[in-house]
Amino acid sequence: MAGKFEMLMRGIGITFNNVNLLKQAFTHASYRNEHRGEAMQDNERLEFLGDAVLELLISEYLYKRYPQLPEGELTRMRAAIVCEPSLVRFATKLSFDKYVRLGRGEELSGGRKRPALLADVFEAFMGALYLDQGLESVKEFLDTHILPDIDNVHVLLADYKTMLQELVQRDGIGPLSYRILEERGPAHHREFVAQVMIDGKPYGEGIGRSKKEAEQRAAQATITMLTQKENPTS
Amino acid sequence: MAGKFEMLMRGIGITFNNVNLLKQAFTHASYRNEHRGEAMQDNERLEFLGDAVLELLISEYLYKRYPQLPEGELTRMRAAIVCEPSLVRFATKLSFDKYVRLGRGEELSGGRKRPALLADVFEAFMGALYLDQGLESVKEFLDTHILPDIDNVHVLLADYKTMLQELVQRDGIGPLSYRILEERGPAHHREFVAQVMIDGKPYGEGIGRSKKEAEQRAAQATITMLTQKENPTS
Repeated sequence: MAGKFEMLMRGIGITFNNVNLLKQAFTHASYRNEHRGEAMQDNERLEFLGDAVLELLISEYLYKRYPQLPEGELTRMRAAIVCEPSLVRFATKLSFDKYVRLGRGEELSGGRKRPALLADVFEAFMGALYLDQGLESVKEFLDTHILPDIDNVHVLLADYKTMLQELVQRDGIGPLSYRILEERGPAHHREFVAQVMIDGKPYGEGIGRSKKEAEQRAAQATITMLTQKENPTS
Repeated sequence: MAGKFEMLMRGIGITFNNVNLLKQAFTHASYRNEHRGEAMQDNERLEFLGDAVLELLISEYLYKRYPQLPEGELTRMRAAIVCEPSLVRFATKLSFDKYVRLGRGEELSGGRKRPALLADVFEAFMGALYLDQGLESVKEFLDTHILPDIDNVHVLLADYKTMLQELVQRDGIGPLSYRILEERGPAHHREFVAQVMIDGKPYGEGIGRSKKEAEQRAAQATITMLTQKENPTS
């Protein structure tokens, strides 16, 4: 059994001081129930803690990454990241499902692939790593394994263009279009600058790693401008 | 204006590296709206971050303080601590209301004492302190100013005795009573050990700084025993 968790630690590049914490993070209640003789805790309390660790680090990431976004948008983006489907994707990407310790009944009924179970394991792992090595280590872990993924999740940004389209229609101030002001940076780190045009006048700008991302950000900036009833940039 | 925040820092025993972060935490949107010419941010984004900082530290505190409590109970206790009335109490205890920067209209309508506003300021302060000095500093701040208060908030524990009474009645297994097994420790750090008795048999034990607290914990332990359908200790 030790070999299995050694393998996991090698895979993620982290050596736990207290391997029992790591094991606990992967121990489902159904497994503990079948091993009542042994001193063993399941991952539920670690999940409670890890949920809060993840929430803080994602909040900090968004706070710093989007210095202009209002609180409401940050909250919406955080909810889109710290949700079961995302956590399942992270857990699966890291092959966490292979390491879960399940009771027989749960195993037979396909528990190993159950989304809620995988999301819980990911959160419990966050909690275990935090207790074992502190917040900075969890931050590094997320920087390495999770945030690059989040940055590419366009779903986070996907509804700004639609929102703006609706706003422009409602206020009868169209037509709405986008233009690319600039392409810059080396090929492996290309950046685009997009600008929203409404009725021929320039509105918000946005920067992104793709044209679409830049346009989404430009749409977002424009929504902020319009809803704060400020004047267009010129 | 600097003098006011110098005073605040002296009061809480913390010197901010970036005093602007501290000011931002105390800047209500209504104040910023009246000073549009000046480069200034309000506290809303800091509140987003501070909420998550507080949530993590309270989670960690409860996780370590109550090693036996199941996740559901920890979640319930956390919600009882990180709620508007508690945050208002913390903010008021620290005289934060005196330092809030408010717009004229908000001031005239009594905004300075509005609970939601004070709770937001407390969370924003958590966020500012975290950005300025890191998690350990916020932890120390809570240890000094907030956690002693929380430990005395019996409301957190108040419903275990009632819950147990209801459980015993429902299952018809009474009568229910409590006994104090031990009083120990020096006068300034007295501890009590209480035990639940049901139908003359000993059930869960609890330790607390008052008889009532010890009984609440004993009731809690007993609820766990009864609801997990395990046998009484003997």
